[in-house]
Amino acid sequence: MALFIGVDIGGTKVLAAAVSTTGRVLRTAHRTTPGRRVEASLIEDALTEAVEELSTTRRPSAIGIAAAGFVDVQGERVRFAPHLPWRDEGVRARLAERWNAPVVLDNDANCAARAEIAYGAVGHSQYALVVTLGTGIGGAVVIDGAVHRGHNGMAGEFGHMQVVPNGQACECGGIGCWERYCSGNALVRFVQANGGRQDITGPEITEAARAGDPVALAAFAEVGEWLGVGVSNLVEAFDPEIVVIGGGVSAADELLLAPARVALRATLVGAEHRAVPPLVRASLGPEAGAIGAAYLARERFRSAGTRARARRQAARGTDRRP
Amino acid sequence: MALFIGVDIGGTKVLAAAVSTTGRVLRTAHRTTPGRRVEASLIEDALTEAVEELSTTRRPSAIGIAAAGFVDVQGERVRFAPHLPWRDEGVRARLAERWNAPVVLDNDANCAARAEIAYGAVGHSQYALVVTLGTGIGGAVVIDGAVHRGHNGMAGEFGHMQVVPNGQACECGGIGCWERYCSGNALVRFVQANGGRQDITGPEITEAARAGDPVALAAFAEVGEWLGVGVSNLVEAFDPEIVVIGGGVSAADELLLAPARVALRATLVGAEHRAVPPLVRASLGPEAGAIGAAYLARERFRSAGTRARARRQAARGTDRRP
Repeated sequence: MALFIGVDIGGTKVLAAAVSTTGRVLRTAHRTTPGRRVEASLIEDALTEAVEELSTTRRPSAIGIAAAGFVDVQGERVRFAPHLPWRDEGVRARLAERWNAPVVLDNDANCAARAEIAYGAVGHSQYALVVTLGTGIGGAVVIDGAVHRGHNGMAGEFGHMQVVPNGQACECGGIGCWERYCSGNALVRFVQANGGRQDITGPEITEAARAGDPVALAAFAEVGEWLGVGVSNLVEAFDPEIVVIGGGVSAADELLLAPARVALRATLVGAEHRAVPPLVRASLGPEAGAIGAAYLARERFRSAGTRARARRQAARGTDRRP
Repeated sequence: MALFIGVDIGGTKVLAAAVSTTGRVLRTAHRTTPGRRVEASLIEDALTEAVEELSTTRRPSAIGIAAAGFVDVQGERVRFAPHLPWRDEGVRARLAERWNAPVVLDNDANCAARAEIAYGAVGHSQYALVVTLGTGIGGAVVIDGAVHRGHNGMAGEFGHMQVVPNGQACECGGIGCWERYCSGNALVRFVQANGGRQDITGPEITEAARAGDPVALAAFAEVGEWLGVGVSNLVEAFDPEIVVIGGGVSAADELLLAPARVALRATLVGAEHRAVPPLVRASLGPEAGAIGAAYLARERFRSAGTRARARRQAARGTDRRP
């Protein structure tokens, strides 16, 4: 049976998964992201190790990479990645050569959205937004049931929309970006600034909030409110049927979503005169990006018997569905 | 020859136009919008007068209404309009009965975008945003060459995206909405707050800026900067090929667009690693909404010989193209 692997590379973690044709994760491999101010080759070494760990018994038929960055419309290059060292690099071809396997590349949130369309919370909704809260914010736009990548492949970069004039400086070089106020990093900064441990992690804050810790609860109240305000802006622009919240921070579930729903309804223009879209948690958890990347690899290469065909398909770049 | 009329109803003006099949304006009629705290019937009287002025010699085959408000996905009701008294009212059917003619209804910025697609600045771009600056901000989303109305018909309500937390109160009931900082009203408030006449109008400010008046120039610098910042947010979300700026304020042309382009490039995430979309002025001027409404009426009813067919088409609600 063919083996399809998805690899999700975010600002803190690398997650590789061998994924079945029904979207089930068969095996995973984990690495730590080496950082954002390191040689790009260190990132690629980490990806390679994770892929090799899943390829010991069988060669993968194709590998999908879900990258926390701007991927060009051809799916060849990472143009820019605030949390990774890649700057306009031909990542797809380089890794395909290194791994001697067909490789596809897309933005991590786009991959997560494909998984949520195929197997998860987007379901049959034709117009949806997917917002992933991890180190920063990723986003994807679903129109007519498919991921809409935009003119340059960069639609859905919601995390860098400015929500505070003269606000906090962001890793991207901008000021007052939404992800400075609404992300795993924002949770950590809130707790650090309010007497918490300086080395605390997002998952620890979720655990503390579940145990009733008042600072952790206040962190979720604030980040959740910012989630609702930002989603309100997106709903005004896109008018989706549903908004799906994924990424590591979404593990906190109602701790995050309950204050977000209150803020969404309070901020959305004409909320009493329209359908306010449901704000729901993604179904596939932290593996959504890897599942979607494997799905993309399988869709692109499942009938490929030859490298020639693989090359033709890769050159075509974008996919239509989902 | 068939007569198609478009009527644009904004926060300050009613503009009706008889429009040729090539998008040329043959005749116009003007009224003042009676206000936003008046009986809805006064608005409808003003629309009726303008339509009647254009119908003295010939009965219109169909009439399109471009309304500055949220129009439902069926094109039947104005659900909410911050600058008009309509609240969830079945405007289309009521006016069709009053005028004894086929009537179609859509949001004003959607109509302007249709005109700019068919005859204007959007041209052959498949992914575009249209932002209209008048009393407030209107917006439209063009995807695959057609206006994307969203799940409830309310996509493109860019003016009420929150750009300043705890900012100025907006007519919509919200706080810190983009149109409070970037619109004809924002220009007027800036000049009033800086020693200008209390009864000054937007067009007078444009004229004063062209004549070198420093306060008027400063007003455009500020409103133009806010335009660039807000467009940057939209480009991050949608990644369009082009952004078209229309509405009455766009008559100021480079006074508005030059500072907006600077702010767009300075604010857009990863601007040096992507194509920054051109920010261009709409081609059709203040008549775009009426031209687009007439276009919509003609597309919907051009082959309609009978009222029965007109009713069937109206019941279908949305249009696909453009």
